[in-house]
Amino acid sequence: MLRTGKEYLEALDDGRVVWVGDEKVDNVATHPKTRDYAKRIADFYDLHHRDDLRDVMTFVDDDGERRSMTWFRHTTKDELKRKRRYLETVIRELDGGAVPRTPDVNNYVLLTYKDDPVPWSEQSQGAGGRDLTVGIREFWDLMVDGDLNAAPAFVDPQTDRSRESAQAESPALRIVETREDGIVVRGVKAIATGAAFADYIHIGVFFRPGIPSEQVIFGAVPVNTPGVTLVCRESTVKEGQYEEHPLAAKGDELDTMILFDDVFIPWNRVFHIGNPKHASLYPQRVFDWLHYQALVRQTIRAEVMVGLALLITEHVGTYQLPPVQARLAQLVGFHQTLRAHVLACEEDGFTTPGGLYKPSVLLFDFGRAYYLENVPRMVNELIDLAGRSSLIFPTEKQWNQPELRRWLEPLQTGPIGRPHDRLKISRVIRDLYLSDWGDRISVFENFNGTPLLAVRMLTMNRAEMAPAGPLADLARKIAGIEPATPKDDGKTEYAGQAAYARQQDARVN
Amino acid sequence: MLRTGKEYLEALDDGRVVWVGDEKVDNVATHPKTRDYAKRIADFYDLHHRDDLRDVMTFVDDDGERRSMTWFRHTTKDELKRKRRYLETVIRELDGGAVPRTPDVNNYVLLTYKDDPVPWSEQSQGAGGRDLTVGIREFWDLMVDGDLNAAPAFVDPQTDRSRESAQAESPALRIVETREDGIVVRGVKAIATGAAFADYIHIGVFFRPGIPSEQVIFGAVPVNTPGVTLVCRESTVKEGQYEEHPLAAKGDELDTMILFDDVFIPWNRVFHIGNPKHASLYPQRVFDWLHYQALVRQTIRAEVMVGLALLITEHVGTYQLPPVQARLAQLVGFHQTLRAHVLACEEDGFTTPGGLYKPSVLLFDFGRAYYLENVPRMVNELIDLAGRSSLIFPTEKQWNQPELRRWLEPLQTGPIGRPHDRLKISRVIRDLYLSDWGDRISVFENFNGTPLLAVRMLTMNRAEMAPAGPLADLARKIAGIEPATPKDDGKTEYAGQAAYARQQDARVN
Amino acid sequence: MLRTGKEYLEALDDGRVVWVGDEKVDNVATHPKTRDYAKRIADFYDLHHRDDLRDVMTFVDDDGERRSMTWFRHTTKDELKRKRRYLETVIRELDGGAVPRTPDVNNYVLLTYKDDPVPWSEQSQGAGGRDLTVGIREFWDLMVDGDLNAAPAFVDPQTDRSRESAQAESPALRIVETREDGIVVRGVKAIATGAAFADYIHIGVFFRPGIPSEQVIFGAVPVNTPGVTLVCRESTVKEGQYEEHPLAAKGDELDTMILFDDVFIPWNRVFHIGNPKHASLYPQRVFDWLHYQALVRQTIRAEVMVGLALLITEHVGTYQLPPVQARLAQLVGFHQTLRAHVLACEEDGFTTPGGLYKPSVLLFDFGRAYYLENVPRMVNELIDLAGRSSLIFPTEKQWNQPELRRWLEPLQTGPIGRPHDRLKISRVIRDLYLSDWGDRISVFENFNGTPLLAVRMLTMNRAEMAPAGPLADLARKIAGIEPATPKDDGKTEYAGQAAYARQQDARVN
Amino acid sequence: MLRTGKEYLEALDDGRVVWVGDEKVDNVATHPKTRDYAKRIADFYDLHHRDDLRDVMTFVDDDGERRSMTWFRHTTKDELKRKRRYLETVIRELDGGAVPRTPDVNNYVLLTYKDDPVPWSEQSQGAGGRDLTVGIREFWDLMVDGDLNAAPAFVDPQTDRSRESAQAESPALRIVETREDGIVVRGVKAIATGAAFADYIHIGVFFRPGIPSEQVIFGAVPVNTPGVTLVCRESTVKEGQYEEHPLAAKGDELDTMILFDDVFIPWNRVFHIGNPKHASLYPQRVFDWLHYQALVRQTIRAEVMVGLALLITEHVGTYQLPPVQARLAQLVGFHQTLRAHVLACEEDGFTTPGGLYKPSVLLFDFGRAYYLENVPRMVNELIDLAGRSSLIFPTEKQWNQPELRRWLEPLQTGPIGRPHDRLKISRVIRDLYLSDWGDRISVFENFNGTPLLAVRMLTMNRAEMAPAGPLADLARKIAGIEPATPKDDGKTEYAGQAAYARQQDARVN
Repeated sequence: MLRTGKEYLEALDDGRVVWVGDEKVDNVATHPKTRDYAKRIADFYDLHHRDDLRDVMTFVDDDGERRSMTWFRHTTKDELKRKRRYLETVIRELDGGAVPRTPDVNNYVLLTYKDDPVPWSEQSQGAGGRDLTVGIREFWDLMVDGDLNAAPAFVDPQTDRSRESAQAESPALRIVETREDGIVVRGVKAIATGAAFADYIHIGVFFRPGIPSEQVIFGAVPVNTPGVTLVCRESTVKEGQYEEHPLAAKGDELDTMILFDDVFIPWNRVFHIGNPKHASLYPQRVFDWLHYQALVRQTIRAEVMVGLALLITEHVGTYQLPPVQARLAQLVGFHQTLRAHVLACEEDGFTTPGGLYKPSVLLFDFGRAYYLENVPRMVNELIDLAGRSSLIFPTEKQWNQPELRRWLEPLQTGPIGRPHDRLKISRVIRDLYLSDWGDRISVFENFNGTPLLAVRMLTMNRAEMAPAGPLADLARKIAGIEPATPKDDGKTEYAGQAAYARQQDARVN
Repeated sequence: MLRTGKEYLEALDDGRVVWVGDEKVDNVATHPKTRDYAKRIADFYDLHHRDDLRDVMTFVDDDGERRSMTWFRHTTKDELKRKRRYLETVIRELDGGAVPRTPDVNNYVLLTYKDDPVPWSEQSQGAGGRDLTVGIREFWDLMVDGDLNAAPAFVDPQTDRSRESAQAESPALRIVETREDGIVVRGVKAIATGAAFADYIHIGVFFRPGIPSEQVIFGAVPVNTPGVTLVCRESTVKEGQYEEHPLAAKGDELDTMILFDDVFIPWNRVFHIGNPKHASLYPQRVFDWLHYQALVRQTIRAEVMVGLALLITEHVGTYQLPPVQARLAQLVGFHQTLRAHVLACEEDGFTTPGGLYKPSVLLFDFGRAYYLENVPRMVNELIDLAGRSSLIFPTEKQWNQPELRRWLEPLQTGPIGRPHDRLKISRVIRDLYLSDWGDRISVFENFNGTPLLAVRMLTMNRAEMAPAGPLADLARKIAGIEPATPKDDGKTEYAGQAAYARQQDARVN
Repeated sequence: MLRTGKEYLEALDDGRVVWVGDEKVDNVATHPKTRDYAKRIADFYDLHHRDDLRDVMTFVDDDGERRSMTWFRHTTKDELKRKRRYLETVIRELDGGAVPRTPDVNNYVLLTYKDDPVPWSEQSQGAGGRDLTVGIREFWDLMVDGDLNAAPAFVDPQTDRSRESAQAESPALRIVETREDGIVVRGVKAIATGAAFADYIHIGVFFRPGIPSEQVIFGAVPVNTPGVTLVCRESTVKEGQYEEHPLAAKGDELDTMILFDDVFIPWNRVFHIGNPKHASLYPQRVFDWLHYQALVRQTIRAEVMVGLALLITEHVGTYQLPPVQARLAQLVGFHQTLRAHVLACEEDGFTTPGGLYKPSVLLFDFGRAYYLENVPRMVNELIDLAGRSSLIFPTEKQWNQPELRRWLEPLQTGPIGRPHDRLKISRVIRDLYLSDWGDRISVFENFNGTPLLAVRMLTMNRAEMAPAGPLADLARKIAGIEPATPKDDGKTEYAGQAAYARQQDARVN
Repeated sequence: MLRTGKEYLEALDDGRVVWVGDEKVDNVATHPKTRDYAKRIADFYDLHHRDDLRDVMTFVDDDGERRSMTWFRHTTKDELKRKRRYLETVIRELDGGAVPRTPDVNNYVLLTYKDDPVPWSEQSQGAGGRDLTVGIREFWDLMVDGDLNAAPAFVDPQTDRSRESAQAESPALRIVETREDGIVVRGVKAIATGAAFADYIHIGVFFRPGIPSEQVIFGAVPVNTPGVTLVCRESTVKEGQYEEHPLAAKGDELDTMILFDDVFIPWNRVFHIGNPKHASLYPQRVFDWLHYQALVRQTIRAEVMVGLALLITEHVGTYQLPPVQARLAQLVGFHQTLRAHVLACEEDGFTTPGGLYKPSVLLFDFGRAYYLENVPRMVNELIDLAGRSSLIFPTEKQWNQPELRRWLEPLQTGPIGRPHDRLKISRVIRDLYLSDWGDRISVFENFNGTPLLAVRMLTMNRAEMAPAGPLADLARKIAGIEPATPKDDGKTEYAGQAAYARQQDARVN
């Protein structure tokens, strides 16, 4: 089945309880604060029905069924590149990153369970010995068959970081009852992006020291499950201003707190419970696929930045000036370095226990790190190159007033003419980098998946990063010394991690 | 006379022609898009009537008249510091920089003429030998007596920078007729910030190579002069959302294009016309006072950033963590370096031809440069320290729903409690750094007065920056060489500049 | 033929005229200022005779001859990777970048002529219609057969950049006579790195505006040609201090000015003369292969930096501290980004007119740019992590004094023991980053091949970087506008460049 | 008494035991590895006898005695500025920072005891109730009368930072016997810069968690005390190369490990012993004066950098190019920001318990932080502006060879001529930034006094930096909230520190 946009929109009217800012939303598909974004997700589904994109957007599975590439399992480098072209196409068709959490992105996370379900079940504590892999596989099939969308809800409330015991006292989601047919959970997941627009909430946990067993829950529930309330922040959508705000009018995916008031989850929707040690292995790994997609998206964002810089400097007539060229080259370099990380992580990939071809985690993680570290400077550069054109320009209605137009047109006319085009470029720059909407997108990139500091610390844990490891081999050779401790002696913290987890990082021999 | 806020607001209803985004505004004091900012300027005036601030906000002039400190002429370092305390008080009382272009700032620019009016008159071309200093002094007195507000309008339309001839073809404001009683001007000034809220438009020109004589105009006209139309960009004010958006609801000062459709300016409002060479001496100097105030404002902005970082990290419980302390120290250092520039430029000041004590131009210019170069990184740091608290938090109405409150309160409660306070801190961070309104303020700092690159290039022109100048003395001594060219031989471009202009830069012996 | 180190050293005693600092060197192979580096080049040749490296260092050519991989022509991506493994092995075996200009690097430049010799001949002016491709091919065969080493000498004397006419007046090398059998040249090449250790000087020109026809010379002469004098700068070698300065004692490759006092070059050693326009196409392209190798070398340098940081923090006991881990992760990221550029440029390569598989120029150029922009910060980080251990440690002789040893040993003993190892690590850090020798290597990376600014400006010239080009496609789509000018209309400066040159940049359709 | 250079040099021949690298030095004043630096210190003393500098270098004390300004106690801002002019003069006369640890700098540290000696005595543990203030005052008078030089030796061996207990096991200096007439100490001080050239070793301790009581020792011993051995690192002096290496030939101050083999210190040279808590208050404060001087020195270093950049770009002809001007402006800004910190810290000073006028600690600490954070980038910029001229230029002897001179002279001749001058400028750049000697000076700035991270963490401890403190006042006002905890409630860690220590930070009310 390939879902259509229409089917998707109809499914949203299912009684889900959603607050957006000050308002309680009756139907996400039609309420002014949410309908634009719902329309974007509908567009996502409809893209799969476009004839010209058929080979990019869909594949035929082993049973001869044509499916969305969302569900494609890539087992070789070429297949991974095919998947990437799909991800890129979705991003490009939906305005270059304006809709970060499309279903293809959300569902990519599920691969972690599907790829290697056994440890999730075996490591559970409190599941009464049930085989949870059955539910994991069932849920995957359900998602594929319905072409559904499961939004991750992993982040717990912020607690007092100065003491580990605070985690146990937090209002975070926890199991309050274990029953024969499932579990009852209560509490809060603090951020679930786009959950108001999803079919399922994919519950997980981002391990923190001190987390008690009852807070360790991985599983899924429909968004309209009784007891679930979605409390979205204020919306940044510029409702209806499609011309003046070409991007910001296209909807806000709405970061959401989710309240679970004694919500029941049947066993076949429970993927794992109860084992903090198991959970501690996944803060980064469960989001690996998300981070690879994030890098692809950020590379396209960088391309948009370069493009806008070229267009606006051409319009205002500074493009040819050597100092401007030197600055544009900085933006080009930013884009190329991101491209390098995309190509390289694919080139340097490996095969997971489940047979997936996975790009190099180090290379996409540090690619994303490079983006986050450098993007504020680059945005600032772009805005400076745009100069006043980023903010001070007439509105469409001013433009259309004849008594103003004769004045405004010469003001917007540079060496290549086309004054109205300059307005359009300026609006995109304003929406992306100088608006509520754009700022939220920028901040989202920081908080999407694993925060940078966590990525760095977890990376340094890896065996090959140890002073006794291979990364210091050449330095040791030059210095003429031997490793201080035997390599691979099983003593490092990393080497002590379960092999099933380390196999998500790299080839394990 | 000390104007009151009420008097100010009444004066705004004078028939001025103002567009704001898509709407034509009847009365700036009452229209929803403008009334909040008008109210802020009224607040500015009312501050002068507060008893507790009387000694800070006002002074008694030589005629025994109590005046706004706006009009205070500082002739010593201590008097300059008194003026600075006034500027700081205005900024602090009006939310730490939320209202950048208050009358004290706008009018500070006028000091340049008042301090040394003769060259402006003598260097004019096309004024028929009239003594323009009479009008300059008259206008100053008029402003002081009425406690008025003259918004600078200096920036011309962007032209094709790749060829100098483009400037002459631009729709920039120009003299179209010279009459016995004055001049008639026609064309556009591309940016005049806050002009819709001023009494007078202070016309000037920011010199560019190729500017023709008829575009060189310095003078003043009332905002409601026939033929003048103000076209403001889209407003960023969050109308009426005083609680949810404590800063962004307080008004947007509205950058404005001004159209002059055959506008008459009588000779006694003309300060200078016709001499591109004279104009070329002032792109930086005419804004010196503005830049000093900008540095003072930016220092306070930095203080607000440090304060917010302290408050939000205390609230979320990370304040005590050593890595967080190290990052907070970066923000503290940012603030201290700005403070250093403020104190040092005052310490290293000099006396102008007109007897003003003027802070060191180098030290306030490079202080502002330091701010602009580092602030994007610092804002990013603050947002990262705030984490999700910068964006994802309940609205006031959600908070006030009892069925939500019991869930939301624990979510906002950190080690020091006070969950509602955290909302308030988060809102300020969002308004300042993650909103249309805040982004515009940030960009304004870049474009306010002389752009950074221009400041740098003009600074390098100064005599003491030459390879043969004193800055290389020690390097020469260490290398054991003599200056390549005699110092002060009158051959450098800078030394060739009119002494009256160089006297605005430093003590000239 | 695979040259041996012994053969190489013997060949150096050929009467060449070499100054090193204050001394005239009789025999480069034996003089204290030069023998260590000569020994390193001999080591390079001997590496090709090591059994364990045979498959990496050599290949069998079409005639069944085993050759150095220096001469390998890679026509596929896999072959390029094979070449890279060779380049890496040379770098690793010779201390990780301590000997930047080995013969494999120098000779890589010659590929440009060999790959597509016809334009070099056809575009010549003043060669009397001679077919210079014969000499180009002959010279290549001569080099291959003798396994020789031709050091590039391209850089002309610095001239007054403020006027183009200065170039013609410079003492740069020029043709002073054209004869039946060849040309006579006179003047200076300002920098030729390692020329004192080469067999041939590979003369070329780095185009500058205003260069006259007679300065445009590409060709080759033996280093000992009559009339050639090599004036090397002061040497940084720490003669004989093999233990105390493990790297700096291994020789200095000596940047050299070359004086040509009426030197004769026969026609079969002239590759091109006389056409400034042709020369203008090559400032970057002729060094493309050098830049690819530079990126590979810089990636290994980064690996050494990470390794040293791991080792020294382990030794001083800070490795486990979380803030140190976060800083180490920065160095790891630096290394990963460089790796990404290496892998990506290979992945995204193309085929040249001569059938070579060439890595993506954009990706290796911006990889090198990334290195140069970030390496000062990274070195500073490493030194800061090493702390006092980078500078303050006992000498080997102090260490060996028994009355000092009992004091010194505990001082160097950290959590993992091995005090003498710490000395060895410290010495490498000092040699690489805190010595005459190391500083010269760092600066060399800046000036090796095309300077960064030139790379950037030339890159922006490329067709795909134009505002009307494909890089702005997505930005245009989002803004809803059309290209301002038709693409590929032949009007851009780049499109106007000879196709034979553009074919060195990317696939040309 | 005003010591002469001759007197100083004679005093050095006192039997002190000094190793420099591999050699044991008989007489520091005459040995080739040390005589040049000894000569520099002699120059320091002789400066005080120069008639033209008399008023800058000396003052007349209360007893009518003319003394070195080293001993001047500044009680007002103007007196502090007088002291600064003295510090600056020493730096400028001795090549702009080439001799960082002159006696005026070393002895400045002693002010901390002299200013407020009582707590040092009262807080001692194990001194048997002796009044140590007598010895403190006596030692000060001894130093003043002899115009002597006491080098600080505070830094202990690096220990395993991952566990506090490591400090007690370290070979650090400790008291091994307490006698009636004094104490006997044994162990190592790991770094004492310039101690080989001093009269006294000023022993102190830089507190680390876990330090045992017996390691807490503050006092002084003559350098030639029996049992004291100085082990200096390898020297970087370029012996005798006064022309080729104008700075590096002038001596290396030699960082030194000091071994104390049962060294006796009489009670009147003991300033404090035994109290880790007291010691914990001084890691930063005891070096405050040193850091103020460091900022002054760094400001002059920045001036030298600007000067060299101006000179070399003028010589190579790039000075006039706009992009070069923009880059030079960066260096100018670097210098101005440092100047701002100097002027501002003086302006914002306070009076210590002992009546000294002390500059603002925050402002000089963050000034030094600014320098250290930005100087690597600035040095890189300077080297890039110098281009090849920083490294590749003829030696003096090459220059003086007539057969080379005719070639070399045009090579060094730019728009302003004077080719030999360019050599001189290049040599200074090489010595300062691209040599063993210069690198050591750069690294010294990092490790001189308190490391940056420690400064930052200790600063954040200060009362006014607390979230409840005044720095967050404005942020709280804008957010509309109250302080979470009462200010100055004595509960913060900082407020709990002894008042006598906090009085070294700021005015205490």
